[in-house]
Amino acid sequence: MANESQNWVLMVTAQTPTNIAVIKYWGKRDETLILPVNDSISVTLDPNHLCTTTTVAVSPTFQQDRMWLNGKEISLSAGRFQSCLREIRGRACDVEDKKKGVKITKEDWGKLHLHIASYNNFPTAAGLASSAAGFACLVYALGKLMNVKEDESQLSAIARQGSGSACRSLYGGFVKWIMGKEDNGSDSLAVQLADEKHWDDLVIVIAVVSSRQKETSSTSGMRETVETSLLLQHRAKDVVPKRILQMEEIIRNRDFASFSRLTCADSNQFHAVCLDTSPPIFYMNDTSHRIISIVEKWNRSEEDPQVAYTFDAGPNAVLIARDRKAAALLIQRLLYYFPPSSDDLDSYIIGDKSIAKDAGINGIPDVEALPPPPEIKDNIPSQKYKGDVSYFICTRPGRGPVLLSDESQALLNGENGLPK
Amino acid sequence: MANESQNWVLMVTAQTPTNIAVIKYWGKRDETLILPVNDSISVTLDPNHLCTTTTVAVSPTFQQDRMWLNGKEISLSAGRFQSCLREIRGRACDVEDKKKGVKITKEDWGKLHLHIASYNNFPTAAGLASSAAGFACLVYALGKLMNVKEDESQLSAIARQGSGSACRSLYGGFVKWIMGKEDNGSDSLAVQLADEKHWDDLVIVIAVVSSRQKETSSTSGMRETVETSLLLQHRAKDVVPKRILQMEEIIRNRDFASFSRLTCADSNQFHAVCLDTSPPIFYMNDTSHRIISIVEKWNRSEEDPQVAYTFDAGPNAVLIARDRKAAALLIQRLLYYFPPSSDDLDSYIIGDKSIAKDAGINGIPDVEALPPPPEIKDNIPSQKYKGDVSYFICTRPGRGPVLLSDESQALLNGENGLPK
Repeated sequence: MANESQNWVLMVTAQTPTNIAVIKYWGKRDETLILPVNDSISVTLDPNHLCTTTTVAVSPTFQQDRMWLNGKEISLSAGRFQSCLREIRGRACDVEDKKKGVKITKEDWGKLHLHIASYNNFPTAAGLASSAAGFACLVYALGKLMNVKEDESQLSAIARQGSGSACRSLYGGFVKWIMGKEDNGSDSLAVQLADEKHWDDLVIVIAVVSSRQKETSSTSGMRETVETSLLLQHRAKDVVPKRILQMEEIIRNRDFASFSRLTCADSNQFHAVCLDTSPPIFYMNDTSHRIISIVEKWNRSEEDPQVAYTFDAGPNAVLIARDRKAAALLIQRLLYYFPPSSDDLDSYIIGDKSIAKDAGINGIPDVEALPPPPEIKDNIPSQKYKGDVSYFICTRPGRGPVLLSDESQALLNGENGLPK
Repeated sequence: MANESQNWVLMVTAQTPTNIAVIKYWGKRDETLILPVNDSISVTLDPNHLCTTTTVAVSPTFQQDRMWLNGKEISLSAGRFQSCLREIRGRACDVEDKKKGVKITKEDWGKLHLHIASYNNFPTAAGLASSAAGFACLVYALGKLMNVKEDESQLSAIARQGSGSACRSLYGGFVKWIMGKEDNGSDSLAVQLADEKHWDDLVIVIAVVSSRQKETSSTSGMRETVETSLLLQHRAKDVVPKRILQMEEIIRNRDFASFSRLTCADSNQFHAVCLDTSPPIFYMNDTSHRIISIVEKWNRSEEDPQVAYTFDAGPNAVLIARDRKAAALLIQRLLYYFPPSSDDLDSYIIGDKSIAKDAGINGIPDVEALPPPPEIKDNIPSQKYKGDVSYFICTRPGRGPVLLSDESQALLNGENGLPK
């Protein structure tokens, strides 16, 4: 280090999206390296509505590696953090910041400590893949800070070691995580199948479902499925490889009818292997089941499916509508069955609120005036489930990681490297 | 027919138990003959608490075949009734009742009409396998009336054509339904693995769960699973055959720990293939999931499992306790989490009420005084779910069909053959 002063702080801020799998990842063949038992495919969600922002900083004044998540300091001792830090440091290159008069050589990185601040623009506990966006952002930001030459795909193999699905957040659009064959995991990485402009009709509505149950973590859940389910191996070896090929073709052709059928079937099969685990794992609850029934009934009443549903390791529904028109009809149905429990519609439908406007929903009276969906043919007045959904997020497929060059967006103070 | 008068009515009354599968039947390879895709094993439930009573009558005065279920006339036109009637009539033999001066020859049976009255001592709609007991009882009673020479196993192949699981209600104790190989179904029948005295420690508690959902019928559910699940064939071909051998050995050895593990796993796998169906089938609801969690948590806190759970095509839990002591501890846990919503404890715990007495439960104050189960170690006060269970039935493994020779127990009037 040949530097004019020892008080400098060098920072990089990045923003990374979350993603939702349409062909699911469930089960590791290597717990430490996080190598999966099958390929998976995801859609990246628009970071305007769901993303992680991370600032990473380096300074000779830092005494140790430290991290703050949503303003609260957390420990970096977990293996998943240590793996990512070690892998990224091992690829660090010379960095020079002439303006600040800072020069860091490849060798210096091993001696310098890091400060990391990360912030999710959505509730961490809501089961919305915050760890995927988080580890992708950590690795991406550190890669930029340390002038790492590896491309996104190679970075994804590092992010994978933090959280498996994080590898799929290094790209926008549709992304495939190739399981790979190597024991060291070097070929278990993400590739982009299509960017976010390829199929930009799609609209995504997430129903954040209220839950009273304590959920099984996906890490321990997966382990128990691998150890006890007699159906998982059949899924991983015989079912998923065919589905991956089908889904790649579906995405290429923007074939929504097939996309809907396969996405729903694969979500259900993932939850089926969870149920086939001992003790059984239930991520979906009665509200999740009701949302599925509403969508299935509607899809079957139309010539072609209008919406696909998929559920991760929790009760929240991710609903993918074929276009804005279908999304407006979907929002009408969802609000009909799940009206808000307070008068605050503005915090009940968040994200891209224009979808609700398209559906003619501008206030509570519009929700109350919604007629039952036409597919309910029996004249039994349908039950409503006020309070069973916490809120809806309207979004769409989105772009991959970006750097935020405006220092005002940094989460760390440029002077002392502490959270702002 | 050489008979003194033409006004005679000849009647037989029988009582047949219901049964609960511990290795599940799900999926037909032949819809008409009702031939399954795998063997299954069941426990017969004590007919004192759950049974069907059926009176069958023949008289030259009857103008057509007629049937009454729980006092209400129902149509016999469905194929499943017609199959049973045709098969039984085809095996009818000469019958002579000297007291009544009645003689019916083999050939007469084709010309004579039948009256049938059937009554379940439990709610038909509660999802407690009423059709299994019903068809078993119909076939058994008709067999006796018509002097059919076939044994229970051969009768079971006829009852099977009414309702698949009915074939397992022709025996008490533990029963195997052998799927068979023949296209005509002649070898798809039930055999007894052990009678009800073989393992008489077991105590069974059924939680009848309140449900707001309309359920998929098992007939259409099975068909959709066979047509759309990619996991079912693997279950039927690779998983169940091994489990059948294991369960037979477990029953032979009265090995409760293994019985519990395998029974729970197979119930969960059945519901997993339902979930892997398109559209997915959900029979269990949040209450079912809660009961599973309570049992799993308790079992894991003990050296050996105390209770097995199994769920059929509905949300009701069938809980099999290793002995009376475990059953009393189970009842305490169930009442702790699911207290009655009214003050009428007497109609909340039905069947063998001595189990509740063993548990020290004599009235509502005893329910209110129940401490949280010791396996809840975190001091979070646990939530209670009043109203989520409709009632509990305490029972045990029971005997097979019997004839009720006392005419006062007949459901039809001996004079005119109409319901009493």
